[in-house]
Amino acid sequence: MAVYTHLGAEDMAALIAEFDVGTLVSAKGIAEGVSNSNWLIETTGQDGRGARFILTMYEFRIDIGELPYFLSLLDHLAAQGCPVPRTIHSRDGRLYLERPNAAGELKALALIEYLPGVSVSEPTAAQARAVGQSLAQMHEAAASFRGVRANGMGVAEWRRLADACGVDGLAEISPELARIVAENLPRLEHDWPAGLPASVIHADLFPDNVLMLGSTVTGLIDFYFACNDTTAYDVAVTHAAWCFDASGTSFRPDLSQALLEGYRDRRPLSAAELAALPRLAQGAAMRFAMSRAYDWLNTPADALVTKKDPMAFARRLEFYRDHPEVFGPEVFAA
Amino acid sequence: MAVYTHLGAEDMAALIAEFDVGTLVSAKGIAEGVSNSNWLIETTGQDGRGARFILTMYEFRIDIGELPYFLSLLDHLAAQGCPVPRTIHSRDGRLYLERPNAAGELKALALIEYLPGVSVSEPTAAQARAVGQSLAQMHEAAASFRGVRANGMGVAEWRRLADACGVDGLAEISPELARIVAENLPRLEHDWPAGLPASVIHADLFPDNVLMLGSTVTGLIDFYFACNDTTAYDVAVTHAAWCFDASGTSFRPDLSQALLEGYRDRRPLSAAELAALPRLAQGAAMRFAMSRAYDWLNTPADALVTKKDPMAFARRLEFYRDHPEVFGPEVFAA
Repeated sequence: MAVYTHLGAEDMAALIAEFDVGTLVSAKGIAEGVSNSNWLIETTGQDGRGARFILTMYEFRIDIGELPYFLSLLDHLAAQGCPVPRTIHSRDGRLYLERPNAAGELKALALIEYLPGVSVSEPTAAQARAVGQSLAQMHEAAASFRGVRANGMGVAEWRRLADACGVDGLAEISPELARIVAENLPRLEHDWPAGLPASVIHADLFPDNVLMLGSTVTGLIDFYFACNDTTAYDVAVTHAAWCFDASGTSFRPDLSQALLEGYRDRRPLSAAELAALPRLAQGAAMRFAMSRAYDWLNTPADALVTKKDPMAFARRLEFYRDHPEVFGPEVFAA
Repeated sequence: MAVYTHLGAEDMAALIAEFDVGTLVSAKGIAEGVSNSNWLIETTGQDGRGARFILTMYEFRIDIGELPYFLSLLDHLAAQGCPVPRTIHSRDGRLYLERPNAAGELKALALIEYLPGVSVSEPTAAQARAVGQSLAQMHEAAASFRGVRANGMGVAEWRRLADACGVDGLAEISPELARIVAENLPRLEHDWPAGLPASVIHADLFPDNVLMLGSTVTGLIDFYFACNDTTAYDVAVTHAAWCFDASGTSFRPDLSQALLEGYRDRRPLSAAELAALPRLAQGAAMRFAMSRAYDWLNTPADALVTKKDPMAFARRLEFYRDHPEVFGPEVFAA
């Protein structure tokens, strides 16, 4: 949540001149993204009527070699009618540019379309339904995308993160967390669903990564965890991210039913996928519990980020384990 | 440089509904302001064509009792044709609203006009001239403003800050800094110019606080140090902020001449004001050296702000002391 690199007006204007988007009118650093610097850019536009963009400098975590996957995925999905921001290509056809940051390190910069909409904090059922529909639309549209990227946050990574935290580290966060990991991680590793339909998945579709106007999805954003993996796992991740109340642990059956119905409006879930969802959802909860636990123990006190509580997801894991009926056929009988 | 308070989309939409500006379309936290949280807001606008605003939550430092001075000053200056953002009044006529922040403390929020333009890092002479003109225009326009606010960062405050740092604290930053303060602060206190024309002054018109498109000033912003004080002192502050190169210490005579000529295009400087400028500029440099020194010693290591070097201004102080001819009549002979 910061802008790590200062780009002066003169540098910014020169950078924007590499794209056919008119001249620079305004550039405001925006407080989004923990591994990127982002600016909301206004230009005169190709037609002089004004246009807006998000400029992203990839500061940490993202391997430049993976940028073509993320940025061409946006183009592919936008071309198929999904509400995702297009990548603006430079005049000479590049998806991203490279410039030195303040420390003289070469960093990639991409210009992407600005989309209207706000991220809801307390979704309604109508909003959860719309998100389910958009997720299914994205899965369908991505079927013809040719890029391939492994899921860097899959089962093997949960184990690696748990080991890096150590039992003592987990217990330091909460004795409950250490117990929940010990009880559930071996079982999930052993029984992780295989052989289900796969596709490009977003893998991080929290409310923060969805822009909405009323009950309409205007933008799916932040595809930097996107990868090729089990399609229904993306449903599970989205379910874990949307279907609990603001306190993070109280299940909201209305949101759950709306999200799943919305999804199935656009893409049917097979019997095998439905049967796997309780385990996939436990895995989704484990994934966020483990990445948050690792960040909790490894974020310096002076970092510019807010620590997120791993226990919110550890408790969701137990909820999913104890309530497989959330994904049962009876939910959809009504 | 952060957004200290999270405002959810639902809260934001309710807040925006207090103003006659259409409905909320987008809200991005922007990375500006060390004592405020700021959002760039897009709405449908009164006419459905879209409109943009800056929403500010006053988090620290600013006394709510002083907000009417700052916000009605913006209205006054904008009405006189100055390039400053208007304050948007709420439907029931208020200049600002009050809402609890995350910690439950009541904070003031104001909606102000969004202005295009970018802040230059390496001004040209034409840009410095335009800034001089805008500063003079602002001084003239403010003559009819009835609000009064004392300068909280005047001579007495430099002494208070220097004492709070202590000789040891100043020497810890730099032995040079301790020497420069000891040599110059008593002299400035004793000889501080009095009896010169006074007006509302901006008192902090750094390049960061000026929006420009090319060589046109599109916005003077961040009036939260504005006060009633010696008019020529504002010229001195602006001079100290604009007329040195990016390293901060090398004097740029071309920018100096352009800034002063631009100012005098709109408002003549009397012989007494010109004669006082070398001391006023030393005082301006002392003011920023002292506030930076205090912040340097009192900013926690985990704070979200970048420390600014007090020495950049201590050296400018010595420059102004040794080069009074910068403000001499021969500069304007050409």
